[in-house]
Amino acid sequence: MDVVEFRPTPDQYAWTFGGVAPSHRIRPGTVLRLWTEDAFSGRLQRTTDMPSQVLDMTQVNPQTGPFHVEGAQPGDTLAIHIVDLTPARDWAASTTIPFFGALTHPYTLHEPLPERTWIYQLDRAAGTVRFESAALTLDLPLEPMLGTVGVAPPGREVRSSLVPDTFGGNMDTPEMKPGTTCYLGVNVEGALFSVGDGHYRQGEGESCGTAVEGAMDVTLIVELIKGGAPAWPRLEHDDHYAVVGSARPLEDAWRASQVGMVAWLGDLYGLDRLDAYQLLTQVALSPLANVCDTNYSALTKISKHLLPAADAHGGMHAHLRSLAKGLI
Amino acid sequence: MDVVEFRPTPDQYAWTFGGVAPSHRIRPGTVLRLWTEDAFSGRLQRTTDMPSQVLDMTQVNPQTGPFHVEGAQPGDTLAIHIVDLTPARDWAASTTIPFFGALTHPYTLHEPLPERTWIYQLDRAAGTVRFESAALTLDLPLEPMLGTVGVAPPGREVRSSLVPDTFGGNMDTPEMKPGTTCYLGVNVEGALFSVGDGHYRQGEGESCGTAVEGAMDVTLIVELIKGGAPAWPRLEHDDHYAVVGSARPLEDAWRASQVGMVAWLGDLYGLDRLDAYQLLTQVALSPLANVCDTNYSALTKISKHLLPAADAHGGMHAHLRSLAKGLI
Amino acid sequence: MDVVEFRPTPDQYAWTFGGVAPSHRIRPGTVLRLWTEDAFSGRLQRTTDMPSQVLDMTQVNPQTGPFHVEGAQPGDTLAIHIVDLTPARDWAASTTIPFFGALTHPYTLHEPLPERTWIYQLDRAAGTVRFESAALTLDLPLEPMLGTVGVAPPGREVRSSLVPDTFGGNMDTPEMKPGTTCYLGVNVEGALFSVGDGHYRQGEGESCGTAVEGAMDVTLIVELIKGGAPAWPRLEHDDHYAVVGSARPLEDAWRASQVGMVAWLGDLYGLDRLDAYQLLTQVALSPLANVCDTNYSALTKISKHLLPAADAHGGMHAHLRSLAKGLI
Amino acid sequence: MDVVEFRPTPDQYAWTFGGVAPSHRIRPGTVLRLWTEDAFSGRLQRTTDMPSQVLDMTQVNPQTGPFHVEGAQPGDTLAIHIVDLTPARDWAASTTIPFFGALTHPYTLHEPLPERTWIYQLDRAAGTVRFESAALTLDLPLEPMLGTVGVAPPGREVRSSLVPDTFGGNMDTPEMKPGTTCYLGVNVEGALFSVGDGHYRQGEGESCGTAVEGAMDVTLIVELIKGGAPAWPRLEHDDHYAVVGSARPLEDAWRASQVGMVAWLGDLYGLDRLDAYQLLTQVALSPLANVCDTNYSALTKISKHLLPAADAHGGMHAHLRSLAKGLI
Repeated sequence: MDVVEFRPTPDQYAWTFGGVAPSHRIRPGTVLRLWTEDAFSGRLQRTTDMPSQVLDMTQVNPQTGPFHVEGAQPGDTLAIHIVDLTPARDWAASTTIPFFGALTHPYTLHEPLPERTWIYQLDRAAGTVRFESAALTLDLPLEPMLGTVGVAPPGREVRSSLVPDTFGGNMDTPEMKPGTTCYLGVNVEGALFSVGDGHYRQGEGESCGTAVEGAMDVTLIVELIKGGAPAWPRLEHDDHYAVVGSARPLEDAWRASQVGMVAWLGDLYGLDRLDAYQLLTQVALSPLANVCDTNYSALTKISKHLLPAADAHGGMHAHLRSLAKGLI
Repeated sequence: MDVVEFRPTPDQYAWTFGGVAPSHRIRPGTVLRLWTEDAFSGRLQRTTDMPSQVLDMTQVNPQTGPFHVEGAQPGDTLAIHIVDLTPARDWAASTTIPFFGALTHPYTLHEPLPERTWIYQLDRAAGTVRFESAALTLDLPLEPMLGTVGVAPPGREVRSSLVPDTFGGNMDTPEMKPGTTCYLGVNVEGALFSVGDGHYRQGEGESCGTAVEGAMDVTLIVELIKGGAPAWPRLEHDDHYAVVGSARPLEDAWRASQVGMVAWLGDLYGLDRLDAYQLLTQVALSPLANVCDTNYSALTKISKHLLPAADAHGGMHAHLRSLAKGLI
Repeated sequence: MDVVEFRPTPDQYAWTFGGVAPSHRIRPGTVLRLWTEDAFSGRLQRTTDMPSQVLDMTQVNPQTGPFHVEGAQPGDTLAIHIVDLTPARDWAASTTIPFFGALTHPYTLHEPLPERTWIYQLDRAAGTVRFESAALTLDLPLEPMLGTVGVAPPGREVRSSLVPDTFGGNMDTPEMKPGTTCYLGVNVEGALFSVGDGHYRQGEGESCGTAVEGAMDVTLIVELIKGGAPAWPRLEHDDHYAVVGSARPLEDAWRASQVGMVAWLGDLYGLDRLDAYQLLTQVALSPLANVCDTNYSALTKISKHLLPAADAHGGMHAHLRSLAKGLI
Repeated sequence: MDVVEFRPTPDQYAWTFGGVAPSHRIRPGTVLRLWTEDAFSGRLQRTTDMPSQVLDMTQVNPQTGPFHVEGAQPGDTLAIHIVDLTPARDWAASTTIPFFGALTHPYTLHEPLPERTWIYQLDRAAGTVRFESAALTLDLPLEPMLGTVGVAPPGREVRSSLVPDTFGGNMDTPEMKPGTTCYLGVNVEGALFSVGDGHYRQGEGESCGTAVEGAMDVTLIVELIKGGAPAWPRLEHDDHYAVVGSARPLEDAWRASQVGMVAWLGDLYGLDRLDAYQLLTQVALSPLANVCDTNYSALTKISKHLLPAADAHGGMHAHLRSLAKGLI
């Protein structure tokens, strides 16, 4: 297996999906050992650092990549398997950015909510990050995930790394974790995928707009499947299938994920649309991902334990899992 | 403990929250052993029964009750503990009702989706219900829940039993299951709560609009807490807290549940609003309940394992759990 | 023509659509000469009156009525023609109610916007109301309208007089003005319609949630058409047809009005759904009504000058206009 | 005055806002005499042409431009005055594109609505376009407008010419007509604005997704104002001010336009936010623009006759109107 290591310098960050020359050209099957800077580009380090003073909003969600995958053509399917996510620092940050987040609203006449910054200290041995507030201190389990995994968009567009859509991107779902295979439709030659926005943990919905944001050491395996591009990002774990929809209002994000899962159940079991709709109604889990970004993201997720065994996308997940075992 | 048993005859069903004379007056602490008819009023029995032909849309979601709780005043909190839910029939039904459900839309020019009815056979020994379709037959775990648990609304309103709102009602969340304590604010003297719409199982979102709908034997304990009415329904399990918000669009349903949980975290731990917002961001689970009813319902849910021990509403849940143990 | 005069005393106000005994039984063709109190029940009289101190939120939008129309059956169409609206006081009030209005949001963590009350003085000779602020004083044309015109809802429901829906209600559209015929589907025997919430003028959208609110002398003629109940309220002026949709999110309110107009164009000209959709696309006006109430309201409106002459609902509007001429 | 004429060949069309090299560099004050191809790139010519067969969805809304305006810097304001719009063909087309348009929905399980194409013949002498259907033939007034007027977006993004947002773009408002001055904030050096998507007429909301689409001869004057960039596009007519907001759901598009107008009223008259909110509530017109595009667009519009005289943006509109008079 080819192995590519890449720790971008600040001038090498990508800030968009699409519109950027590839940092590397890789072959399908390549192992990537990457470092990703945090969503704030490392500018938020102390509880006294206020977003309006230290953040540069044109430099958030720095991406590592993009990677040109040889042979990837529009209509193909990229399979990105997350082998490992390890925090690259012993602390992480979260904050309230004016008029950003689910419990504020930009199109009102209110003054912004107060800015406040939280710094989380990591305890690697215990596997926890520490939430500290005036009233309460809590050690919360470390559950690393990637906020952004995306390819270049279709239709000649270039989108900010803050955007989730059909091309993946800033989906901000806790389901993007070690052991996950993410299937993305390819829109441009080479796919041009990138990753970033590591979270040491995050609740579903990412309420205040920023998770426990931290730099991350990321190990991926990237594979290519000819054809079969799904309309919306699909995730496969050992024990679940999931589809991510991104849109506004939130019901449309979720409906997109449902329609995506109806299609997947059709692929896997030959269910017609109505039977898939019925089955979904009785077995779907529907965890939210983010309700703060430019599109909201919602998942439709099904436990494999409820379904007959099947080989999604030709058994790609099992294949990548076995490759991954040799890497850790 | 007082025990009241009630199996309503069809002429005794209630069809609304509010606006109906109580079926019983009960004292706080009463055990209720109830029977609830299914959401279709039992009219859907075969796969050849089509909703447009056999359903009476003015007679769906029949309620058992309402119960007048002595001493309940506006501003008080009703605690309804679900001791047990046992399917009262060996089969259940689900269907597609024209222009009802998440993957159709009433304000379009489309023809309705085809009507199709599924009948689920119950295997009590195995604890399963059977999904049958042309392509696939699956035995799914029985996971009984109540779609509707509600009190009379505020503001002189009378709402259909299809509606979820601040008063609870047709929330259609799988979290309303045995072992749950549901806290509802009281709006009118006596609270006037009712239950119905049993589901043998349901996915999150209730996509097609109807779960595995079945008649249910329901055992509840009802308690009253003076004052402390929450703005939105709160649920407490042994291992989770949850708040249910109901509104449209879906983001507002979820935001309501988030604001409700910010308030609860403040009650439990003295967190100020910003610290509660931050904690929520990192620990909330956000499962959807329904995306098909007149208001959509979404939950904010937190694992108690992540939080310090606390006695919500004066330790009511533990109290009711211990009472319930004597009943089964 | 029968003429009924009614100036309710405060204990005679209705606060809901449905759920209230009729104040009068009238025959179709009756002229009603009514007085309506303002939306604040007259409690806001000075710029120093703050809503949180002087308003009783259980007593807003008092209704005059309801009127039982003899012979009205579910499925029939009530035609309410507004003959005249004359301000009943020489002043009117508007204000900002905490977390109510389009540019605030209830499900956030913000403090409420400041409360401020504006009193508008009326100049009857000039036909103006005076907006006064620190920076600017403006005389604005008097354009009286009714915020609420509604019948009892279907499905056994009772709704607050703050709610707009299929039954009309608190639609808050400036199109509800002298010369308008409003067609409402009848849901219960007698229809039980009421009116209230007079505005001396209002912009489209009713941004801050309260118009130039004032008591009103109202002259109506009420007619009954057997059958033909429209799904959504229809308005007819001498020069326009309009349909009002009410829902959330706002696009669904507007879509409902569009689907309603597709149906009306079909009734009037035999256009099939696709041709009506096309024609609508090129000729519809789409003024908003309110973006602040429990449902938002939006209109689809077409100039009669663009269409062939037609007799909507059997020429009822022309009939009522001619009757009205004899009354003024 | 500099005059630039440009009739792009198909290989010169731009398909995005941003990401395209300028077709011309012009000085502020330049008169542009342009030709724009129709939204379908001219591919829909007969009622038998079906979108799914003849359209290339990667080649819709071709743009003429972009134009680099010398001296334009981020934060400046571009003033684009529409001197004249004259249909460049004697016919125009409209159609139903599968799952595009307000009365269909992409995230459902419905089959697409039928495709149907309407060809409108122009009668220049009468100033009409002819709607033809099985049931009805109507001559509708010609009211030419531009669907898209936009500059390059901020944040390194490149957006499809189907998108409306803060940068203008595919707003699809009938208010973009001869006599209009459109003020757009500049995001990149040179502003890089383009125009296209001429409509011979369109209703508010553009229900089915396509107006009376036709090639257009366009005469513009382009001016530059240093600084003063508005957050959202502003329109000025002889008799109205308007702000266009674009977002989903629709209420957020309208709220954005309202917040934009609150700012403009503050600029013009020194009104504080609450007084501007109040005034808006009583005087705003709120016509919809489109409810079909990737963002919906809504306007807040005020008649100048209701307001004291003022010189918006330094009297730019009057200046451009006087220049325009010399051109026709």
